[in-house]
Amino acid sequence: MMSKRILRLGLPKGSLQEATIEKMAKAGFNISASERSYIPYVDDDELEIRLIRAQEISRYVEHGYLDAGLTGHDWIVENGSKVHEVGEFIFSKVSRQPTRWVLAVPENSPIKSVKDLNGKRVATEVVNITKAYLRRHRVKAEVEFSWGATEVKAHELVDAIVEVTETGSSLRANQLRIVETLLTSTPRLIANQGAWKDNWKRQKIETVTLLLRGALEAEAKVGLKMNIAQKNVAKLLQSLPALRNPTVSNLSLAGWVAVETIIDEHVVRELIPKLKAAGAEGIIEYPLNKVVY
Amino acid sequence: MMSKRILRLGLPKGSLQEATIEKMAKAGFNISASERSYIPYVDDDELEIRLIRAQEISRYVEHGYLDAGLTGHDWIVENGSKVHEVGEFIFSKVSRQPTRWVLAVPENSPIKSVKDLNGKRVATEVVNITKAYLRRHRVKAEVEFSWGATEVKAHELVDAIVEVTETGSSLRANQLRIVETLLTSTPRLIANQGAWKDNWKRQKIETVTLLLRGALEAEAKVGLKMNIAQKNVAKLLQSLPALRNPTVSNLSLAGWVAVETIIDEHVVRELIPKLKAAGAEGIIEYPLNKVVY
Amino acid sequence: MMSKRILRLGLPKGSLQEATIEKMAKAGFNISASERSYIPYVDDDELEIRLIRAQEISRYVEHGYLDAGLTGHDWIVENGSKVHEVGEFIFSKVSRQPTRWVLAVPENSPIKSVKDLNGKRVATEVVNITKAYLRRHRVKAEVEFSWGATEVKAHELVDAIVEVTETGSSLRANQLRIVETLLTSTPRLIANQGAWKDNWKRQKIETVTLLLRGALEAEAKVGLKMNIAQKNVAKLLQSLPALRNPTVSNLSLAGWVAVETIIDEHVVRELIPKLKAAGAEGIIEYPLNKVVY
Amino acid sequence: MMSKRILRLGLPKGSLQEATIEKMAKAGFNISASERSYIPYVDDDELEIRLIRAQEISRYVEHGYLDAGLTGHDWIVENGSKVHEVGEFIFSKVSRQPTRWVLAVPENSPIKSVKDLNGKRVATEVVNITKAYLRRHRVKAEVEFSWGATEVKAHELVDAIVEVTETGSSLRANQLRIVETLLTSTPRLIANQGAWKDNWKRQKIETVTLLLRGALEAEAKVGLKMNIAQKNVAKLLQSLPALRNPTVSNLSLAGWVAVETIIDEHVVRELIPKLKAAGAEGIIEYPLNKVVY
Amino acid sequence: MMSKRILRLGLPKGSLQEATIEKMAKAGFNISASERSYIPYVDDDELEIRLIRAQEISRYVEHGYLDAGLTGHDWIVENGSKVHEVGEFIFSKVSRQPTRWVLAVPENSPIKSVKDLNGKRVATEVVNITKAYLRRHRVKAEVEFSWGATEVKAHELVDAIVEVTETGSSLRANQLRIVETLLTSTPRLIANQGAWKDNWKRQKIETVTLLLRGALEAEAKVGLKMNIAQKNVAKLLQSLPALRNPTVSNLSLAGWVAVETIIDEHVVRELIPKLKAAGAEGIIEYPLNKVVY
Amino acid sequence: MMSKRILRLGLPKGSLQEATIEKMAKAGFNISASERSYIPYVDDDELEIRLIRAQEISRYVEHGYLDAGLTGHDWIVENGSKVHEVGEFIFSKVSRQPTRWVLAVPENSPIKSVKDLNGKRVATEVVNITKAYLRRHRVKAEVEFSWGATEVKAHELVDAIVEVTETGSSLRANQLRIVETLLTSTPRLIANQGAWKDNWKRQKIETVTLLLRGALEAEAKVGLKMNIAQKNVAKLLQSLPALRNPTVSNLSLAGWVAVETIIDEHVVRELIPKLKAAGAEGIIEYPLNKVVY
Repeated sequence: MMSKRILRLGLPKGSLQEATIEKMAKAGFNISASERSYIPYVDDDELEIRLIRAQEISRYVEHGYLDAGLTGHDWIVENGSKVHEVGEFIFSKVSRQPTRWVLAVPENSPIKSVKDLNGKRVATEVVNITKAYLRRHRVKAEVEFSWGATEVKAHELVDAIVEVTETGSSLRANQLRIVETLLTSTPRLIANQGAWKDNWKRQKIETVTLLLRGALEAEAKVGLKMNIAQKNVAKLLQSLPALRNPTVSNLSLAGWVAVETIIDEHVVRELIPKLKAAGAEGIIEYPLNKVVY
Repeated sequence: MMSKRILRLGLPKGSLQEATIEKMAKAGFNISASERSYIPYVDDDELEIRLIRAQEISRYVEHGYLDAGLTGHDWIVENGSKVHEVGEFIFSKVSRQPTRWVLAVPENSPIKSVKDLNGKRVATEVVNITKAYLRRHRVKAEVEFSWGATEVKAHELVDAIVEVTETGSSLRANQLRIVETLLTSTPRLIANQGAWKDNWKRQKIETVTLLLRGALEAEAKVGLKMNIAQKNVAKLLQSLPALRNPTVSNLSLAGWVAVETIIDEHVVRELIPKLKAAGAEGIIEYPLNKVVY
Repeated sequence: MMSKRILRLGLPKGSLQEATIEKMAKAGFNISASERSYIPYVDDDELEIRLIRAQEISRYVEHGYLDAGLTGHDWIVENGSKVHEVGEFIFSKVSRQPTRWVLAVPENSPIKSVKDLNGKRVATEVVNITKAYLRRHRVKAEVEFSWGATEVKAHELVDAIVEVTETGSSLRANQLRIVETLLTSTPRLIANQGAWKDNWKRQKIETVTLLLRGALEAEAKVGLKMNIAQKNVAKLLQSLPALRNPTVSNLSLAGWVAVETIIDEHVVRELIPKLKAAGAEGIIEYPLNKVVY
Repeated sequence: MMSKRILRLGLPKGSLQEATIEKMAKAGFNISASERSYIPYVDDDELEIRLIRAQEISRYVEHGYLDAGLTGHDWIVENGSKVHEVGEFIFSKVSRQPTRWVLAVPENSPIKSVKDLNGKRVATEVVNITKAYLRRHRVKAEVEFSWGATEVKAHELVDAIVEVTETGSSLRANQLRIVETLLTSTPRLIANQGAWKDNWKRQKIETVTLLLRGALEAEAKVGLKMNIAQKNVAKLLQSLPALRNPTVSNLSLAGWVAVETIIDEHVVRELIPKLKAAGAEGIIEYPLNKVVY
Repeated sequence: MMSKRILRLGLPKGSLQEATIEKMAKAGFNISASERSYIPYVDDDELEIRLIRAQEISRYVEHGYLDAGLTGHDWIVENGSKVHEVGEFIFSKVSRQPTRWVLAVPENSPIKSVKDLNGKRVATEVVNITKAYLRRHRVKAEVEFSWGATEVKAHELVDAIVEVTETGSSLRANQLRIVETLLTSTPRLIANQGAWKDNWKRQKIETVTLLLRGALEAEAKVGLKMNIAQKNVAKLLQSLPALRNPTVSNLSLAGWVAVETIIDEHVVRELIPKLKAAGAEGIIEYPLNKVVY
Repeated sequence: MMSKRILRLGLPKGSLQEATIEKMAKAGFNISASERSYIPYVDDDELEIRLIRAQEISRYVEHGYLDAGLTGHDWIVENGSKVHEVGEFIFSKVSRQPTRWVLAVPENSPIKSVKDLNGKRVATEVVNITKAYLRRHRVKAEVEFSWGATEVKAHELVDAIVEVTETGSSLRANQLRIVETLLTSTPRLIANQGAWKDNWKRQKIETVTLLLRGALEAEAKVGLKMNIAQKNVAKLLQSLPALRNPTVSNLSLAGWVAVETIIDEHVVRELIPKLKAAGAEGIIEYPLNKVVY
């Protein structure tokens, strides 16, 4: 008799925790974590979840304490972890962009490029990334670890900071200017290299990845459905490349068809006026849970 | 080269802020406002958002500091603002009704109509609306501005109040009786008269209006889908006016069709028992993001 | 002229209140309860809602103060209430299981079965259920009412507890071991026996039940839609019993059909990889509001 | 060698917990309880604290699981616990009165005295106290246990309630009228009868009682100090009985003395104007930590 | 038989409420206000408290709905209320300064004085104060009522604002520059003119004022006590004017005295090093509840 | 003309912030920090406050960005900062003990001493302290930086942790056993070495230290005052060494004296019963703001 096999998966604790648990639920894995819980309940007896700080997940995946984990590309680089990268995701619905680690200085600082950092002091949470970046540019500067609230330090405690940003608004609010971007980062699902060679674990990891990707795709996409006269369909589709692969089904009313497609949510606001102009009627947009091509 | 054009849009700060941002997101405009932020991030570089008290938006639209704004009909009237009204919306899903500004008095007050206010004192946040109303009824009463908590004043500090209510339950809880309704109000999208004459701005305002209306329509509506034998369709549709314009599509199973329609959410609770009685099977209701006719 | 008839319905106050109001909204009954409110607003003038502790609802339904109520099977048994049970529901999306009242002891306790309780002391919120259970097993033990925080008592204040659990994780966190299960419980909609004999009330109760069941079914289910070549459909359906009753509709592209079905959400994570393997394309999963067979 | 002896003391968990811990700190016992903690840290290695619902403390003191406990007189009576009562305290600074369990009915109820309860239904958290009270008045009524929110029940679910009140304002806010008082209650320190016969435990209990009483006395009292001409002292003291036992000390300024006393805080507001009138100067009031006569 | 007389006192609701209730408690009047309560409990049956917005209190005192009230000088002026001012208080322990209503503009605004406001637009919560101020300086500008968040408006919606500030830090954080001060304001206890002529009410108002002043004095002051050799006393007192009226009492140890005084808390930090230098020993500082000269 | 001189002082941001600001207020320096504020207001124009993470203060004091700072001995050691240590304080009123950084392992771990760590992995926030400690014991182990939640890691992610503890209760709750103590730590006021050589800055630092020490002393101490017959004084004082230096003042009542002293708060609970036994009457304990010997 085969015993039950288990995949141990690390998810980020803290500020990303709620969003991650919500997305895992959309992927089909319901996780129930009481506050401060390190080992939450998950409704899949082939999975064990560990909630760990995003900064540390890649380290424990590398060492095999976790079979796989969800963490940022930035922390994999910062830790120099040797892991197998299975997939990349975009979490943010608002900006639809990767986060960036940027070199920032006060608005009125004389520092205009990384070259101007020679002999200066830089505070950051990503000491290794910053040091490697300075080495690449042959700049000698002191890099110190910042325990937090890095932005306020740029005005008097250090000469520059390397800080993470999504839309840049927090830097602007602190009257800081972005000099250069060191690294862009997105969430990644990573696997321990040994676990990746184990057939069962690899398949389980791929299933989680497939479903999580399907859930995240669905967050950025919507279903769009409309009725249109048969004679107008060709023109509609030609002029609207976003509607490349629609499902066209016949309606009982002769000469009319229903056109249905899946589309990026953020283009809908430009598309709907055009659809109306092309003769579409009864346009509805509906939400999706998963999209798997 | 054309420079980028910008539409400046005022949204209500405070108690309506969260709901408005959520509805704007459904319309396709993702807004990210940190607490106390006056200028939030929006993922459309043709838009600039300002978060302003609902009471003040019409004033700044009139003067052109804002090109357009979302505010209540009540505050447009109270401010006497000369603006172009683009569209009307219903926000409340619970009551599906406009808010009302009503004249209210303690349950045991001798005041039975506006005529009885002669020589009395009235507290309200809408001093101008109240004064105009008294003038129309040729009643002379003192109207004083109330900074809040108006309801408790009716019992000893003034003789009557003019207060806003949706379901009336807060007035009842304060043991107040509604005497008359002065004004009903719904959210409106308004435009500065100059901005409305500018082609680009007008088109942008209309697009926002179209999408916001589509999102709000979708909140009050649902998709309904069911299978039914071909022979029963006609009867089903005749007897159920709510299903006026359904999409009827053929199923692969001979003699059966799928009927799909968009319908007011609040009639579903009466409709589903009737659909079952008419022979419908596999009835499902699904949520919508937008509905554009 | 007929006067308006009213059904008085009790819903659980407290920890289940928010979830219940949300589910009633999905069923089509929008309830607006300000904090601490006993009589909330509902947008159906044939209904009156009372928010009452779950433990007490069956008692007031039995006595006729309420026509119907939503409460747990456990409290109906504990109260020994004579009521008509109309329907059973599953609320929890995470565990998809009934709650259980279990006999629990410290991990290292010598108590291995209910028989070992002779002469011992048991703390519980369900004194009657516990006493009946002991009688059935011919065990004499002292049962005392616990006002809360029952789990910590098992370690020094009493010998065993009878406590409710869903996933068992709270008991494990308190280092308690489950000895036996006394009762499993699910939410029930119950009716006063007189109200159930009144035609109008019975029909209203059945409508609420139908819609609430439809809403709860929809929480555990999703819509699944995919395109597949006509030639592969038969194989797809044979091999996948979960897809028993799909709607197959013709696409305009010759040789291809759209397959659509409603399916348990928790099997999707196993199904999607198989669907891809069977040749399905463009798989989308979408959420449902109601499912009525 | 003597081993360390321990006194196990129960303190009320929940709404009274914070106030009790604060008062114990004033008594000199610093307790540090993390949230949900049943066994908090205390800086006295002769004490072990247990945080238990006030309703249950007397039961566990009676059975000897606790040596002593702080709980209300009401719950000792309700539980019929056989314990030794060591001392009585007043906790409330605002009302300076015991709490009362009262029979209450809607303002317009025909019930005017306990006699009118015959055949009625009463809801309460103190079922035993209520039943005993009815027996004493030879009234037959149904008494049912209320799990909370008792006040709202009086209007339609039962005919009367027995509920606890301090200032009566919550009853008035619910439009209830007090019919009679069943029991007044104050916090008590109680001891297990065996523990009370143990010399070491008894002495430890008495020390805790002495210091807690000293701390509570100090909450209701203040120090008052003033300068006055020697010749006016006698008159001052005669006319002001509240100043019975003042400390009169000589000042270096001939003919003047300092008068200092400890006095009930709530009489100060009437006393100070009189002291000024009697010639006192430089009156200061200062706070106290403990008062032990 | 004399009936009980009552004084009705208005206290500010909202941001100042908690501080006011705390200070009233220090004055000897314990007030217990549940959330949103307009009429709180007070442990003095000669008092009735009303919690009202600070902006409105003077209006209701003027009209006699309240006998007395605690409000800011600014709102008395803004309302133009004819009331008797009984006393002035300083609430803020941090800044020990009155609040100021100031004219403020963006840091880089060309506006340098009130004269530069001609033809401009000003937003403020104190429309009357601002208009009077402009009239005095013969400046014509538009003044509009601001419903809140006034500071963000100065950057684009209006040309200047009139806003309240204590330490100026909120204005600086919004990058605004103070141009001029229109009004300084402190809390005042005011009386209705009729109530002030009623002997009983006047005496009650004076008692409240005396005790409240005593409590507020005590917040800004501390007791200071030290031992010193008799021979050093004269020098100590001469050199330290802050110790003007100390109580000097003899100690049992020959040649030593105890010196005790009441002193402004904020000078202690400069005084203690000097006291040590002058030979004082065992210096202790203790808190006060009330100081009445 | 001398310009105003300024001392820049770093205080710990975060979990210790509120306590530190409260203690600074007791020392006489009122600090008003809005949320997230890095530069708070302080009512002393010779001081500038910076709120910085405790872990970083010593680094910025060493480099001269701050003249002085309040931080833990542990972080000074961890950072290896070269600074002048001005004074040591005890903040915790509950345990009256320094915090300790301890080596901890799961209760059932085979690790019994630091020697058993050879070849193991240790997680900690104090990497340098841990490495130095291992070097001193000639143990080779891997030390990794822990970003938080270190306690849960000891059970499966690493072999041991080095973590901070005050009462040990959090370690016990996580079922960890303390193996050894690496370092005890208390708050220190430190100065930049250059600032310490500047007369004005040194004097200002010493004043802050004197007052802060006075405030902290006062937290652990209380005033005790009692009346006793003259004849009993000698015996009282002899038998009670804690009363070493009391102030004995004569009362107007012949043969009686008042004895007053300052004493450690935590001995009062043992002392009061003895004082009563020795004939003391009217014992009162009062709180102190500052104690300066």
